[in-house]
This record gives sequence, structure tokens and C-alpha cells, in this order.
Amino acid sequence: MEVTLQPSERIDDLLKHHLKIIQSKEVFSFSMDAVLLAQFVSLPIQKGRIMDLCTGNGVIPLLMSTRSKAKMDALEIQPRVFDMAKRNVLLNDLNEQIEIHLGDLKDAPPHFGHGVYDVVTCNPPYMIGQTGERNVNEHFAIARHEIYCTLEDVIRVSASLTKFGGKVALVHRPSRFSELVFLMQKYRIEPKRVRFVHPRANAEANMVLVEGIKEGKPELKVLPPLLVYDADGTYSQELMEVYFGSKKGGE
Amino acid sequence: MEVTLQPSERIDDLLKHHLKIIQSKEVFSFSMDAVLLAQFVSLPIQKGRIMDLCTGNGVIPLLMSTRSKAKMDALEIQPRVFDMAKRNVLLNDLNEQIEIHLGDLKDAPPHFGHGVYDVVTCNPPYMIGQTGERNVNEHFAIARHEIYCTLEDVIRVSASLTKFGGKVALVHRPSRFSELVFLMQKYRIEPKRVRFVHPRANAEANMVLVEGIKEGKPELKVLPPLLVYDADGTYSQELMEVYFGSKKGGE
Repeated sequence: MEVTLQPSERIDDLLKHHLKIIQSKEVFSFSMDAVLLAQFVSLPIQKGRIMDLCTGNGVIPLLMSTRSKAKMDALEIQPRVFDMAKRNVLLNDLNEQIEIHLGDLKDAPPHFGHGVYDVVTCNPPYMIGQTGERNVNEHFAIARHEIYCTLEDVIRVSASLTKFGGKVALVHRPSRFSELVFLMQKYRIEPKRVRFVHPRANAEANMVLVEGIKEGKPELKVLPPLLVYDADGTYSQELMEVYFGSKKGGE
Repeated sequence: MEVTLQPSERIDDLLKHHLKIIQSKEVFSFSMDAVLLAQFVSLPIQKGRIMDLCTGNGVIPLLMSTRSKAKMDALEIQPRVFDMAKRNVLLNDLNEQIEIHLGDLKDAPPHFGHGVYDVVTCNPPYMIGQTGERNVNEHFAIARHEIYCTLEDVIRVSASLTKFGGKVALVHRPSRFSELVFLMQKYRIEPKRVRFVHPRANAEANMVLVEGIKEGKPELKVLPPLLVYDADGTYSQELMEVYFGSKKGGE
């Protein structure tokens, strides 16, 4: 379907998939974090219900639609970004599968229902309050700083929306991993799979992907490290496959 | 100093260091876990006090003595193993630096003092109660199963012995990492450095090294993954250096 672009927007190819995505350097552009989360999360293949919180321009549900036929809801608090996500769904003819909603995630459980989702995903703002390098642009500030929601809000709401035995998958900074584990356990989402992302083999992790199960029994698997670059500075084999679906050195 | 060997005991070279160590296949042999913990922990170089809980044959203080001149206490609950650790200290002429004690770690804080150690290390039993492959040999069962102490005992006691700003370093199984983080935070040892050990680059972690700071502020560093084997099945460069002090392919 054809959609109208707003000022500053452009349409990009979404990596290896036959998807297009509207982005904007002034409003919202997706990150590697979102792409890796959409690849990491365990999804039901044929049916079920999935919720993506803090969806931004909808990149996570778009990518998950290549792996699952489950119905997806996605929630975004910024009207300008919500509108972009809605047009991304239309642009890819995914309106039968994905529904974008405008709203505050803190109001989500009474609206969408308690214990109804098989999977909840979220790439939340990473930075506490006004700490860190504050983005001048308000759109980016809201996506990156805990202005409208805290990590505890995200986890409390995710836990509430997820059914017994359902999964909650998040991406965050390793510096806050202890807090993440603490909050997941507090809201009875037991961390079960974790993957640390390192820029290079000899570098500290700068991203963590974690998936928990609601009311799961404690037993964590720490998956092989995900390395972004090889020693020569080129993308690793795994990143090439995630991003471009191609082998290194291939055509 | 010369020491007497008991039945089943033998003296091995302790890796790259000019150390000897008494071991026994029937009583206690050290593991890679202990070697990696002794290498991982942050140590004061010149002075200070260090405690090693569940010391076994004393391998961790012996190895730490190559990195630090601090006074070390080490505690072991099994008289037969305690005796082996004492002889290991004598064998290496380290009795000025290392003192081995016989006792139950749960009684340690009133005996050794609250908040007096700069660093507490422990390679505790990994298996909950009687779960897992139960060792027929009682000596090994006590070292590997939570028979005389639980993980919570280890962390509560470590926290009590450590001074404000001091460090607690542990090695454990990744499957229990969430519990480890939870208990460290419960006893106000904030996890600050963690390193996952993977047998190979594409394998799940089978060991985790973690160091926390008493009353530290929350901010975790996830260090580069430690890989034991290269793709060709030989020890990795890093393991070769830790174990043998030699470069791969060197003489």
C-alpha cells in the first residue's frame, strides 16, 4: 500500500527481509538493539498473541512478522512516532497481523487484559531519568531516557500482560543487568535465556538480550556471546546473516 | 619444607607458578574453576587481608600468593582436606602469608570479625542439596553439593566478613546466576564485574566468575567472554597463558 511521507522521513529496505520501513533522523530510526531482539526472542510460529511495548516506528513487530504468524499489538506513546509505525504496517500490507496503538504502557494491562499475551517484547529507554548524554531532540530523548516510564514500569506491565508460562524478552545495557534480573524476579518473570552482545571478542558487552518465563523455574542459560565485529573490523558472520541474510565473503 | 604424603596423595606442579600442590583423586583435586577465580579476582598487591572460604586443598590462596602479598586466611570444614591444605602451605613455604583454619563457614564472622577483610573469595559447592549426580565419595560430595552450606550461607558470611568497599569474588554455574545476583544484592554486595566462561565460542557458558563490592553502586561490567578451547579443540591463547604462562605455538 502507498503511504504519505512526512518531512524528514525516508523509506529504507529492512535488511534481508522484503520489508520497507519509514524512518527519520529527526523523529525515530531503528537500532541494532531492536533488530537483535526481534531475532533473539522465542516466538510461537503459527498462532498466539504478541505485544511489543515502546515500539517506536514498529521495527520489532515488522521483523517478528517474518518469523511468526501470531497476531501482534504494539504500543507507542508519542503520537508522531505512533503515526510512523501505523504507516509502516500499511506500507508492508501487515494490517491483518499487526495493530499499532497510541498510549502509555502504564495503562496497558486494564486496556489489553491481564495474562493474555504469549510473548511481550520491549526495547525500552536505557538511561535513568535525565542521566547520560541527554538528547536535545525531544523524540529521541523520550525513546532513550526514562521520561515516561522506568524499567520497573516496563517489567511490571510486561509481567501483567503475559500469560502463565508466557515469555518476556527485553534488550538493555549490561550495566543495568543486575537491576533487570532483580525486577524480573520481583514480578515473577524468571530469567531463562540471556545473550550478551560484545562489539569484539576482547571487548566488554555493550548490550544484553534476556528472555524470561512467567512463573518459570529458576535456571538460566547463558548463550554463546554475540560478537558484532571480527578482529579485522568487518561484521561477524552472525551479524551478516542477521542483517543481510548473506554469508561473509559471499555474493 | 618437606611434608608427609598420606595414602592416595600425590604432588603436582601448580601450573606456570613455582608452586607444588598435594592432591588426591580420593579426597580433593583442584578444578579449572578455582584457577580461573584466583586469576579473575581483583587483589590488593602489597597489603590487606584476604579470606578464602571452602578452600579445599588451598589452591586459591596458593595461586593468589603469586599476585598479592596480603595476609590470607582460608577456611575448610573437612579435617582430612584441611590437613592437606595446611601441608600445601608448608610445602610452598607460605606459612608467613597463608593460614589455614578448620571450621564451618557459618561460624566464621564472630570468629574472624565483621567487616575486616579486603577480599573474600569462594568456590562453593554448586549443586543444591542432594540434586544432580551425587558423588559416592563423601569428600567430593561435600565439596560439590550444598551439604554443609547453601549459596545463601556463603554470600551472607562473605558479606559479613568483608569491609565497606571490599570485594567478594565467586565462581558458580550460570544456571544459578540469577539467584547469585539476587543474594549478592540482598546482602549488599553489588555485582560489579562478571565474566562468563564458555567451552567454545559457539557454546553456552558453563561457568561464571563474579565480583561484587560491599555497598557498591549498581553498575555491572560484563567482561569479554573467556573461551576455553579454540575451534580446533586446542586450549585457547588465554587459557594457555593462565595455565602454563606460555603463548600458543610457543616453546
